[in-house]
Amino acid sequence: MKMEKKGLARSDVDALLSGFEEKNISFGSGRVFGSMCTAPHDYALEVHQRFHESNLGNPGLCAGTSEMERCVISMLGDLMGYRDATGYVLSGGTEANITAMYIAKNRSSGKKVIFPRSVHFSVLKAIKLLGMDPVPVGLDEDFRMDTAELESKIDKDAAMIIGVAGTTELGAVDPIREISDMAEGVHLHVDSAFGGFVLPFLEEMGMTDDRVGPWDFRVKGVGSICVDPHKMGWSTIPAGCLLFREGHPFNDLAVGSPYLTSPKAYTLAGTRNSGAVASAFALMKHLGREGYCDLVRRCMGNTKYLGKRLEEIGLSKVMEPVMNLVAFHHPHPERVQKAMVSKGFYISKVCDPPALRFVVMPHVTKDSIDRMVETLRHVI
Amino acid sequence: MKMEKKGLARSDVDALLSGFEEKNISFGSGRVFGSMCTAPHDYALEVHQRFHESNLGNPGLCAGTSEMERCVISMLGDLMGYRDATGYVLSGGTEANITAMYIAKNRSSGKKVIFPRSVHFSVLKAIKLLGMDPVPVGLDEDFRMDTAELESKIDKDAAMIIGVAGTTELGAVDPIREISDMAEGVHLHVDSAFGGFVLPFLEEMGMTDDRVGPWDFRVKGVGSICVDPHKMGWSTIPAGCLLFREGHPFNDLAVGSPYLTSPKAYTLAGTRNSGAVASAFALMKHLGREGYCDLVRRCMGNTKYLGKRLEEIGLSKVMEPVMNLVAFHHPHPERVQKAMVSKGFYISKVCDPPALRFVVMPHVTKDSIDRMVETLRHVI
Repeated sequence: MKMEKKGLARSDVDALLSGFEEKNISFGSGRVFGSMCTAPHDYALEVHQRFHESNLGNPGLCAGTSEMERCVISMLGDLMGYRDATGYVLSGGTEANITAMYIAKNRSSGKKVIFPRSVHFSVLKAIKLLGMDPVPVGLDEDFRMDTAELESKIDKDAAMIIGVAGTTELGAVDPIREISDMAEGVHLHVDSAFGGFVLPFLEEMGMTDDRVGPWDFRVKGVGSICVDPHKMGWSTIPAGCLLFREGHPFNDLAVGSPYLTSPKAYTLAGTRNSGAVASAFALMKHLGREGYCDLVRRCMGNTKYLGKRLEEIGLSKVMEPVMNLVAFHHPHPERVQKAMVSKGFYISKVCDPPALRFVVMPHVTKDSIDRMVETLRHVI
Repeated sequence: MKMEKKGLARSDVDALLSGFEEKNISFGSGRVFGSMCTAPHDYALEVHQRFHESNLGNPGLCAGTSEMERCVISMLGDLMGYRDATGYVLSGGTEANITAMYIAKNRSSGKKVIFPRSVHFSVLKAIKLLGMDPVPVGLDEDFRMDTAELESKIDKDAAMIIGVAGTTELGAVDPIREISDMAEGVHLHVDSAFGGFVLPFLEEMGMTDDRVGPWDFRVKGVGSICVDPHKMGWSTIPAGCLLFREGHPFNDLAVGSPYLTSPKAYTLAGTRNSGAVASAFALMKHLGREGYCDLVRRCMGNTKYLGKRLEEIGLSKVMEPVMNLVAFHHPHPERVQKAMVSKGFYISKVCDPPALRFVVMPHVTKDSIDRMVETLRHVI
């Protein structure tokens, strides 16, 4: 495609955009069951628009947004057991994981990253990028990191251990306290990109079960946590937070930025959208813990409903869901997934064990579940 | 700060936001002369809002936005002399540079990155991250990479050479053709994060001078280019494009993403905002080359005006501006910068030679220049 010499009228571009829009699957269509993103809360959208122009890569020009960023980190730190946590709102869980892994590598003589096989693929990407050595650990019967195997794999070359609080495929929570007890000074990073906006509210409502132990800064060995407002935080993309217990870890990545309003640049990306930061701040203030509890309760209710409906058509759960994510055994998930796409429904899959995967995000309703189940029944 | 138990009403949060907003320096205030960002075009803002929810990290759910992304890359490829360029819209120049450097490192047995001293600091950040070896090269009298020195520094350990088309501090354009002639198979990456939306239009209007040679894919040795729609492209943050001449370089960074709609994830970040992609697409279609020529002509006119006004108060230019960026010798730029901030004006500085730096972005008008110059006259 070439850029036109003379630009098109807005109405003509709008018509082009409508064509593209039709090819996107909107969350509002009720057809998306395989995404950890959702339609942002309308207030989050409104606020994002209001703070579009400022760039947190040049914080001296947006002292207000910088302050909102510190508020977001501090609210999340408080929610996760350590109010004085330091951190930034980055583009998402991947940037947060890369940053945490860089810092851990920089502070260690070792290069090994120890993680459960259920870890998000961004960790594998970061390992390639940073030239670290992957040490995967198997899972126990509840799909949590196997701590006996972990213990045998920690050695002097370990730069960090990554635990997951809400695995991408099944929503399992690793036994962070036990992992911490074994870590003995090795940096422990918890990836709660998805779970961080679910687990604290489940706990507040007394809805966690005994497969979920403490997983946040209340566990002494936890050195850093990532959590994404743009997933279950119901806020706009791009917003993924990285929180550190210790004072100034971001200095490790800092380089001089003499021509900007601050002498050093601390985050991986340079220019940073600040609309999403304002959006996360405003929504956390507006919903409060009660608002997020309502949201999580609703999503968990729909998860239970989806579970019941799929059991009725003969499927069996891989595990009882810990959060709003549930998977069902099926020998050919990819085949089912493709057939469902051809009928306009987007479900996801798990590779090991082979299973159909459903993420019950805020945009999923009982009605949309009914329509999806009806189609799935015909497909399988 | 703690998240409230019961959330605040929107009107109360709005009041908090107004407080933060007042602390930000808006581009519309006419007081920002040191940023490479600007207030996005109003059509860019409108379109961003329309495409907020989709996530390019999961492209199967947003085939329309994915197609717009390919259109943006293809329009830019065409503008830069190679219509079949491959690429992605990333979060900005930093992520683009990191990605290009990772790919170059992955394809070389060497670890050296050769770059002019004028390179953007993101390259230094990427070197830390990727564990590469920095090889800075000095500048000639026009502040362009010194090719004689470059030639002496290319050896078998060179993984890549970075040239800059529009340096951050002075807007100089490195002699890319001469660099390319010396590169002999070493990957040559051109950072035109700022210049990429200026130089093609200057050329179209016959406004480049003989310090600017060909710098894009028309130079055979150029393997990759980065360019930011969210700078002089007048579009929304986050949008920084990375274009490669060769077919599938992004495979190098790819990791499996089995639970998503595409089997592999190719970019550094996972979840990617697609509002900014739609925004860049729509604005390029709407403005066309003529619209960008008008914008660049206006910014260059204002740059010339600013230059004249500052010469009238006794300052002398570091170099005749190549693009809409101009710097003036001053022994104590930091002192002047601070004094200007205390009067509400945000100018920038150059360290070597010590100078005051002004970026004449679309939000800068002759009126705002007059007010700034009047204040600066009192300060110095």
